Amino acid sequence: MEEELIKPYVIGLDLGGTNSVFGIVDSRGEIKATTAIKTQAYDKVDDYVNASVEALQIIIDQVGGIDKIKAMGIGAPNGNFYSGTIEFAPNLKWGHTGVVPLAKMFEEKLGVPVGLTNDANAAAIGEMTYGVARGMKNFIMLTLGTGVGSGIVINGQVVYGCDGFAGELGHVIMRRENGRQCGCGRKGCLEAYCSATGVARTAREFLQQSDEHSLLRELDPDSITSLDVSIAAGKGDELAKRVYEFTGEMLGEACADFAAFSSPEAFIFFGGLTKAGDLLMKPLKKSFDEHVLKVFKGKSKFLISGLDGSSAAVLGASAIGWEL
Amino acid sequence: MEEELIKPYVIGLDLGGTNSVFGIVDSRGEIKATTAIKTQAYDKVDDYVNASVEALQIIIDQVGGIDKIKAMGIGAPNGNFYSGTIEFAPNLKWGHTGVVPLAKMFEEKLGVPVGLTNDANAAAIGEMTYGVARGMKNFIMLTLGTGVGSGIVINGQVVYGCDGFAGELGHVIMRRENGRQCGCGRKGCLEAYCSATGVARTAREFLQQSDEHSLLRELDPDSITSLDVSIAAGKGDELAKRVYEFTGEMLGEACADFAAFSSPEAFIFFGGLTKAGDLLMKPLKKSFDEHVLKVFKGKSKFLISGLDGSSAAVLGASAIGWEL
Repeated sequence: MEEELIKPYVIGLDLGGTNSVFGIVDSRGEIKATTAIKTQAYDKVDDYVNASVEALQIIIDQVGGIDKIKAMGIGAPNGNFYSGTIEFAPNLKWGHTGVVPLAKMFEEKLGVPVGLTNDANAAAIGEMTYGVARGMKNFIMLTLGTGVGSGIVINGQVVYGCDGFAGELGHVIMRRENGRQCGCGRKGCLEAYCSATGVARTAREFLQQSDEHSLLRELDPDSITSLDVSIAAGKGDELAKRVYEFTGEMLGEACADFAAFSSPEAFIFFGGLTKAGDLLMKPLKKSFDEHVLKVFKGKSKFLISGLDGSSAAVLGASAIGWEL
Repeated sequence: MEEELIKPYVIGLDLGGTNSVFGIVDSRGEIKATTAIKTQAYDKVDDYVNASVEALQIIIDQVGGIDKIKAMGIGAPNGNFYSGTIEFAPNLKWGHTGVVPLAKMFEEKLGVPVGLTNDANAAAIGEMTYGVARGMKNFIMLTLGTGVGSGIVINGQVVYGCDGFAGELGHVIMRRENGRQCGCGRKGCLEAYCSATGVARTAREFLQQSDEHSLLRELDPDSITSLDVSIAAGKGDELAKRVYEFTGEMLGEACADFAAFSSPEAFIFFGGLTKAGDLLMKPLKKSFDEHVLKVFKGKSKFLISGLDGSSAAVLGASAIGWEL
């Protein structure tokens, strides 16, 4: 307790393919200072870490120096909590060919403990620490962005599995025949349908399959985004509404299977797609109730993340720091 | 430690739809004494518990009296670990209409702590305590009997979920279109294909779909069992072999999805179907490798239960006693 009084802050790093956003956060989830660098401006990981520490030093000084910092948490693609490494991350030019011991590198530069996990696990920890999952011991976080990520919490602990990579629910198979090609190289994954890109793909498919009137026909099909679909649906466009119904229904079926695994108290949704609100959540809940095994019916809540979207990833990453 | 020396035994009760088998077990998994009663010979649960305790008293006396007993574990259908109750168990005439506080009832009669969970969770705990999962922190137990049950262990703990009923992997959906009717009322569940009854059903389907020669045609189709299929396959019957290939392939696909959830160190199989050995396990492993997300490839072992089939359920139930 005394230590927390002396060291009231943690650093969070949301390491994305484009930007690396740093925040210094207090125990209530308030961001005290923030900075950022371009993730891909560096060819070597050493240069990336040096640039990060240089940027960080300024905001560390703003909050009273490194003595005020308890720990640092990193949310990163292909992050392995057990080893603190980033492993073969396809979108990082200094990280796609091997295993980068990023937690250790920051630890040596900063002199504070550093934990690292993937973005979706970080989001789950953030939700437990500052968000709608406070006090929950069993829940599943689904991040619906460019891809579909997941962070699974069981008995109050994030599930890392035998290798540190558990919780890839975006890659359970939803269509075993004629499934859509997924970025992972397989076919029919949840992510190929229920991500932002999946929603845009569904819209293009629906547009091709009929001549039905739709506001979406005014757009170049290849440039349609999930946001376009959501805006059209909001204007009453029937085809656009059906795109979200289809997406919600499949998510509900997937969650019904996930309930058979860990019977969570809640499913928590995060990411761009959740902006569609009831357009997505209504068919999702209805489909879950229709598909779930009777014993689990009515036992899970369906919630949208309580963290502010723009800072949620940094908050999630920072929350790892409190766990160390 | 001293207590264990003084109380060297636990009681296990394998509560099945037909028989209730009791065993007194030491810490190495050796069964010291055993007895049984007919589960359905009693209309009321009070009579069932009284008859159980009467039968138990004889074997308790054989091992030196109740003072030698540390605790009792019960493996039962629809068993809830959190509450120690059996809830709406369709196959128990004294348990199908409500919630039976069976653990508490035995606790009051015997004066030792009593824990209760479902059969598959008991099998998982048994495997951790006495079997091939000793020392493992992350594994998934799949019981392939009349139905398909599962016990999931994560971070060394059985997953019970928010309600005590987590781990119903027999009821994830493997065929979302034209799925087989499952006993749970839904369609396409893993259990409808990869249980002993599922294998018999597959054999009947394959026999109907062609005129191909098969030893199985000598049998009344309605009486074909998974054992018949396994015997025919052992004699080189091509159709029977394809039945097990189909079954193993689907189990492998299912395990690939389960790996995306908890990335287990091992999948452990138990129950009648495992007697088919390589007939089942070879296509299962091959299919897993073909279908699993790349990051999980080669990380999970595929094991058959190390517990003696006839006593495994009692051993599993007894192992709950050591956890209390």
